[in-house]
Amino acid sequence: MTPPYAVPETGAAVKAADRAHVFHSWSAQAVIDPLAVAGAEGSYFWDYDGKRYLDFSSQLVNTNIGHQHPKVVAAIQEQAGKLCTFAPGFAIDVRSEAARLVARATPGDLDKIFFTNGGAEAVENAVRMARLHTGRHKVLSAYRSYHGATAAAINLTGDPRRWPSDTASAGVVHFWGPYLYRSAFHAETEEQEAERALAHLEQLIAFEGPQSIAAIILETIPGTAGILIPPAGYLAGVREICDRHGIVFILDEVMAGFGRTGKWFAADHWEVIPDLLTFAKGVNSGYVPLGGVAISPAIAETFATRPYPGGLTYSGHPLACASAVATINAMREEGIVENAATIGDTVIGPALREIAERHKCVGEVRGLGVFWALDLVKDKATREPLVPYNAAGAANTPMAEFAAACKAEGLWPFVNMNRTHVVPPCTVSEAEVKEGLAALDEALSVADAHTVG
Amino acid sequence: MTPPYAVPETGAAVKAADRAHVFHSWSAQAVIDPLAVAGAEGSYFWDYDGKRYLDFSSQLVNTNIGHQHPKVVAAIQEQAGKLCTFAPGFAIDVRSEAARLVARATPGDLDKIFFTNGGAEAVENAVRMARLHTGRHKVLSAYRSYHGATAAAINLTGDPRRWPSDTASAGVVHFWGPYLYRSAFHAETEEQEAERALAHLEQLIAFEGPQSIAAIILETIPGTAGILIPPAGYLAGVREICDRHGIVFILDEVMAGFGRTGKWFAADHWEVIPDLLTFAKGVNSGYVPLGGVAISPAIAETFATRPYPGGLTYSGHPLACASAVATINAMREEGIVENAATIGDTVIGPALREIAERHKCVGEVRGLGVFWALDLVKDKATREPLVPYNAAGAANTPMAEFAAACKAEGLWPFVNMNRTHVVPPCTVSEAEVKEGLAALDEALSVADAHTVG
Repeated sequence: MTPPYAVPETGAAVKAADRAHVFHSWSAQAVIDPLAVAGAEGSYFWDYDGKRYLDFSSQLVNTNIGHQHPKVVAAIQEQAGKLCTFAPGFAIDVRSEAARLVARATPGDLDKIFFTNGGAEAVENAVRMARLHTGRHKVLSAYRSYHGATAAAINLTGDPRRWPSDTASAGVVHFWGPYLYRSAFHAETEEQEAERALAHLEQLIAFEGPQSIAAIILETIPGTAGILIPPAGYLAGVREICDRHGIVFILDEVMAGFGRTGKWFAADHWEVIPDLLTFAKGVNSGYVPLGGVAISPAIAETFATRPYPGGLTYSGHPLACASAVATINAMREEGIVENAATIGDTVIGPALREIAERHKCVGEVRGLGVFWALDLVKDKATREPLVPYNAAGAANTPMAEFAAACKAEGLWPFVNMNRTHVVPPCTVSEAEVKEGLAALDEALSVADAHTVG
Repeated sequence: MTPPYAVPETGAAVKAADRAHVFHSWSAQAVIDPLAVAGAEGSYFWDYDGKRYLDFSSQLVNTNIGHQHPKVVAAIQEQAGKLCTFAPGFAIDVRSEAARLVARATPGDLDKIFFTNGGAEAVENAVRMARLHTGRHKVLSAYRSYHGATAAAINLTGDPRRWPSDTASAGVVHFWGPYLYRSAFHAETEEQEAERALAHLEQLIAFEGPQSIAAIILETIPGTAGILIPPAGYLAGVREICDRHGIVFILDEVMAGFGRTGKWFAADHWEVIPDLLTFAKGVNSGYVPLGGVAISPAIAETFATRPYPGGLTYSGHPLACASAVATINAMREEGIVENAATIGDTVIGPALREIAERHKCVGEVRGLGVFWALDLVKDKATREPLVPYNAAGAANTPMAEFAAACKAEGLWPFVNMNRTHVVPPCTVSEAEVKEGLAALDEALSVADAHTVG
């Protein structure tokens, strides 16, 4: 088939066409130099010069099933030929099936699914549900978090992306979550960190007034903030606090959900069941924009006879739902979640710990499944980050040098502030991981040069 | 091909599957009774019993190109086989081409395109751009408007959907736009209405403080609020006010854009060029979730060396962009915008005016292209609405009876409060319009029974 548009023949032409009219997110438009990508398959993508990159970022940590999975592609093509779009008010076979499969995959009794176009809208709607369900206004969220870039979602976010947009705090109060390596609580053990983080949250609730707090929202494992695995007991403790005060517990699993951690949802590692769970990304690996909220029976009941006042034109979009159905089924049929768990336990984890011992710049290794972070430092003794908070965007930093070194080796890394995350697709093979870790190992030597001691 | 999921065989089974797990927007979950839809093509869709409906709503006024347009379906299938998803930071051929075609279609010098998943996110980002460009915080928007359901967008909205979610006004101030039939300004002519609406806006700006106002956002033609065609001179007057005070002028063309009014954008009717223009729906008829903001050179320049602090995982989604490219090209090749103009001028407009004369319930007819409203009244003399403001959602109202009568005739109507909108696809044929208007004519007799005098 001939594409219905002029196909540029070189990467330079594609890049020029991009710079002419595309306004890029999170970027200074005159400064960026986007790589022109010609194609992708599985764990790899390639440019117009035929240079191939192993994708250790899964794009924005969304292609859990890899690029161009044939079953998902076929499902999209088939649904496109049948029914691309239909309004949310109707019953559509593939929408119902997607909701059933998501409800079955999510923890506990979460049973009704409200579909959105992505994670930010999922968070917006979860917060609206919590506020209306409780009749309360405030929402507590963590520093070191990302929840999306629409107004409520960005106000909940606890990273610098919030700063330019937090013109109205809208009842959001930020607290400190557990992060033993840089403890806000001067803790020395995981047990202490969990206990003190819970005590901090309890005290904050007492001072904010529990009767004014609608929800606590947490990424089950804070993702972009550093893949901060919560210590044993923390999430169960937050669940108990929420129950005691009638606060809705929202777990944001947009990044950690759908296999990323080696289980269907990160919450499964600690058997914690939230009242609302937000998802996007891995639900269909982003093949078609899709997100949503999984809803507890109690909250669904609140909107049984009282209309739920939220919506969007593409809620339950048939093409998006078809891709989710195919993705979830393929993940089950092919043992993709199990692959993520095994690769994490037997390959990535051991290898990263070994790499950490050999590199002066690696302060901490942490992760689960295909969701790992290296916390890079100037000095292992002081744990001073390799670059200051919020500095990683600048050029000519040690992190920019590290990223360039990865790319030169054919590895596309995920880099944020002083961290690199190892977040390949859940379908990644042992051989691919070893190839990528060898490149990472080389590139870390560049970062080592910036350490002291 | 066999679908990768169990296909329910009856409408009852599809509906039961929906009720088991799908949480519906804007609805009381235990009250709704969604129609199970089996398929759709062009201006029609059908249920599992083979009953066919002529779609005078274009779903949620988004299927401008009708259902299952073969060129758009083929483009989605082809792009799905090539590259479904890729992160926003890269240059992708089809993303650039979609941006070029949108930039070419939008008015004046709007030249850079920031893609989102839908209209609400487009509005969120337009407001963020305006605030950062001006360094000011307040945003003025109109009563009788809808701008989306995320936090900033719903706060800007001027209809009852805002009420449950306006917990933080976030610097939004609402004003009254022109609407001669129910004038807020006691005007008697279009000229008076325009002049007085502009004076009202000027006075509001003086009292709010122009130096604190970042933007004025308007639907070029308020859509769900009633297809309120602005009088000559109004939009030019707002443009002049914005220029004089250094306020960013945002036109929301999510519903009115891409052919709906018989021109590419509604702003083209008055040759007004905003600083930012939001779009979604018609850009690809919603075949894949897509929206965006078209950006003036001055505002793009603000983010040339200063990073734009907003984004989303699926900004410039390749599959969505491919469907937009195919849609815009098909609309040009097949004269679809011209068809909307001709059908409006020669068929819908004259027929609705004739219908209005024969029905006691029709207070006013207004519209352009395939974007028409009937303002239904209890009494033509007093103009009292057939149902009170915000009452149309209830069952057993005259509007619910009218809608049921339409459906019995095989017509799927758009109904909001005391209005029905005639908003078929831009591809609708004269024969289809006549079929639909005949059904509408019948159903209006049901509403006539609720009038007085």
